[in-house]
Amino acid sequence: MSELSVNHLLGIKYLKEEDIQLIFETADHFKEVINRPIKKVPSLRDITIANIFFENSTRTKLSFELAQKRLSADVISFSAAQSSVKKGETLIDTVNNILAMKVDMVVMRHSHPGAAYFLSQHVKASIVNAGDGAHEHPTQALLDSYSIRERLGDVAGKKVVIVGDILHSRVALSNIFALQMQGAEVRVCGPKTLIPKYVESLGVKVESNLRQALEWCDVANMLRIQNERLDVTYFPSTREYVQQFGLTQELLNSLNKEIVIMHPGPINRGVEITSEVADGPHSVILDQVENGVAVRMAVIYLLASKIK
Amino acid sequence: MSELSVNHLLGIKYLKEEDIQLIFETADHFKEVINRPIKKVPSLRDITIANIFFENSTRTKLSFELAQKRLSADVISFSAAQSSVKKGETLIDTVNNILAMKVDMVVMRHSHPGAAYFLSQHVKASIVNAGDGAHEHPTQALLDSYSIRERLGDVAGKKVVIVGDILHSRVALSNIFALQMQGAEVRVCGPKTLIPKYVESLGVKVESNLRQALEWCDVANMLRIQNERLDVTYFPSTREYVQQFGLTQELLNSLNKEIVIMHPGPINRGVEITSEVADGPHSVILDQVENGVAVRMAVIYLLASKIK
Amino acid sequence: MSELSVNHLLGIKYLKEEDIQLIFETADHFKEVINRPIKKVPSLRDITIANIFFENSTRTKLSFELAQKRLSADVISFSAAQSSVKKGETLIDTVNNILAMKVDMVVMRHSHPGAAYFLSQHVKASIVNAGDGAHEHPTQALLDSYSIRERLGDVAGKKVVIVGDILHSRVALSNIFALQMQGAEVRVCGPKTLIPKYVESLGVKVESNLRQALEWCDVANMLRIQNERLDVTYFPSTREYVQQFGLTQELLNSLNKEIVIMHPGPINRGVEITSEVADGPHSVILDQVENGVAVRMAVIYLLASKIK
Repeated sequence: MSELSVNHLLGIKYLKEEDIQLIFETADHFKEVINRPIKKVPSLRDITIANIFFENSTRTKLSFELAQKRLSADVISFSAAQSSVKKGETLIDTVNNILAMKVDMVVMRHSHPGAAYFLSQHVKASIVNAGDGAHEHPTQALLDSYSIRERLGDVAGKKVVIVGDILHSRVALSNIFALQMQGAEVRVCGPKTLIPKYVESLGVKVESNLRQALEWCDVANMLRIQNERLDVTYFPSTREYVQQFGLTQELLNSLNKEIVIMHPGPINRGVEITSEVADGPHSVILDQVENGVAVRMAVIYLLASKIK
Repeated sequence: MSELSVNHLLGIKYLKEEDIQLIFETADHFKEVINRPIKKVPSLRDITIANIFFENSTRTKLSFELAQKRLSADVISFSAAQSSVKKGETLIDTVNNILAMKVDMVVMRHSHPGAAYFLSQHVKASIVNAGDGAHEHPTQALLDSYSIRERLGDVAGKKVVIVGDILHSRVALSNIFALQMQGAEVRVCGPKTLIPKYVESLGVKVESNLRQALEWCDVANMLRIQNERLDVTYFPSTREYVQQFGLTQELLNSLNKEIVIMHPGPINRGVEITSEVADGPHSVILDQVENGVAVRMAVIYLLASKIK
Repeated sequence: MSELSVNHLLGIKYLKEEDIQLIFETADHFKEVINRPIKKVPSLRDITIANIFFENSTRTKLSFELAQKRLSADVISFSAAQSSVKKGETLIDTVNNILAMKVDMVVMRHSHPGAAYFLSQHVKASIVNAGDGAHEHPTQALLDSYSIRERLGDVAGKKVVIVGDILHSRVALSNIFALQMQGAEVRVCGPKTLIPKYVESLGVKVESNLRQALEWCDVANMLRIQNERLDVTYFPSTREYVQQFGLTQELLNSLNKEIVIMHPGPINRGVEITSEVADGPHSVILDQVENGVAVRMAVIYLLASKIK
């Protein structure tokens, strides 16, 4: 397989397993590139990419921008606060206007689930979903799987538990799709009120006890507790959450086995994970960030090759 | 004529008709460039341009930035919210400081009419007015005329009606100057309270009836209703406005002739224009956006050649 | 001496006198570069620099960005308002994440004194302090001394008075360190409540009378009165301040000697300095801005050569 089966990256659920493998093999190459003294390749000199972020983001936006610059693409970025979205312009008009300026690819974050898909149906450009509400965040799931593959050799056959607020997490949903597609087994663990009902229908078992989840798994992906998204009544107090679902070094030590620790960031140190664990030898948290640039270079490179 | 008669683009009223023709011929060349696979030229490698936007803007700022990047200029941008303008620095100080950093050209949007002119009298750099209050927005008028020329072959002799809030519109004023200079006939149409008294002294006839205006014209330029700028007491209700001045497909169909439909964006769909018209075959709205990049490349290129 | 004695620029107090001389000689070269038609050198093609500004800034941020672009570095910038700092992420996590994306150097402004030093102890990258609270602003002091050297031939032996709010000024403290290290004599002048007690222990004499201070000095560095930082009760009224410490042309004329006038900007015209003085022949205020780019190019170039 030498090209993606899709023209957009809207969600993991639209990909085939071979797409993921192609992205990973391409990312292997770019990971070498970004670890060389000269971290750029001239591949996309003739491509212009617009980053349109309707929600705040530090790391995802910087990661995409760096990936694009390392590919030598022309980059324009804007965030909602500066945009004419304030003037009531519709999403399609905003993007069509940007495309009319001869932009080839749009990377978009939007609070509305399905916004990226909707856009792909109405505009002529390659769309990369950088997060659409609580729906999908496909490049995050790809870099997570890539980091597991890097640490454990393969994703197939691995047992992965995703811990935390599954209900509001686009990271969780994209990870479930990606991991299952690659033959991993996935469970989720968290307060009952934060586990959506549909996960069981996806073949994902729910664990209510963190110790049991950890005893079962090879990899634990500790989600950030996003207080700002939560309906207060759903949620245990932070103190209760830490007691039941916070990952400590003591708990890890008591397991008699090694677990790969992941976190999509930004970390609430002392809440979902202690600093000792986050900065410890089994944490791949900073590898995830590094791999994020390589994986995003791969996604953009492969989608761009379908434009021409 | 091989160079502009001016060192700045402060307003259409400072240009000669030959300047406009030179800009259009140069834009023809750049329009070819941006439709090639490699959309860049190395023309302005040694030029640094600062975009200083004291008012929010999506499309104009992006269009200028893209034009500059396609010319290979070095670009720095800032908007007022991030600037030391908040600390009470004067406009001249802000710009002089930026120029002292060896900046060759300044593109500025400012809420004060005459701000760009004032600046050009006090600083040593080429100034491009990207909108000064309700005064002028010359690159918008140039791209509007360029789009008429592209669709109808010529601007001279054409009949253009500008519909909407003429009183608060820099787009209207710049268009009146540009169209008349090129030999077009201009009328305006809108609520009486939104038509400034000076238009008649410019030889612009006022139409209070949209159907009659459309029966007369070759081109209708539908302005955005900028609620945020309006003194409420001046203004008919949105519902009344739509009934009297909203452009519908039904109204267009009833005319028994074809009219070119323009809009400077962003569109209030269903207010000044319906989606059917905006997206229909006679609309050149997205051509305007595309032409905006080519026209701005031409303006910047021609002004830069006068610096050296 | 061919390289700096430090791996970071955290403050003047960490430098040796030879470091300052090396920076100035390197800046001499870059000042030539930025006054050529082609203002760029390809020196840092393989370096990525992140500008992280947790406090607003126009001129310092633009000056750093231009310096970096003229060195052909890859540049990513973000300011706090757009960042995940809002989500409660710690400073170390923010920066470590950016570094994991293969960033080589971080330029940071932060409201907390010591923030840059703290960071340099915890992350693996070269750190440039672009202002840390009321502590240091080393590149400003370097460009100030560079401007004195340019105008007067040398800094050694010169008499410099710093006028204004010394208590809250990082510019004052960095200037005291830099000037003394180079053999200049420094005095400060301002309202008693705005002179910190430690200055006398640094060998800096306090002048309460502006005329006497000016009669003594070769150079007067007029600080901005930063109302936004002040506890109101400390402070004389603006009117009193202008009467006692405002620099006018009349006062300058009465001295029977020439004084070099400096100001770090942005200027409160008519408060600490009149327009006549700020724009007069003895003012080097715009030279300071120009020299800022050359000095920052030198700092970044020299630090980058220690990375490789």
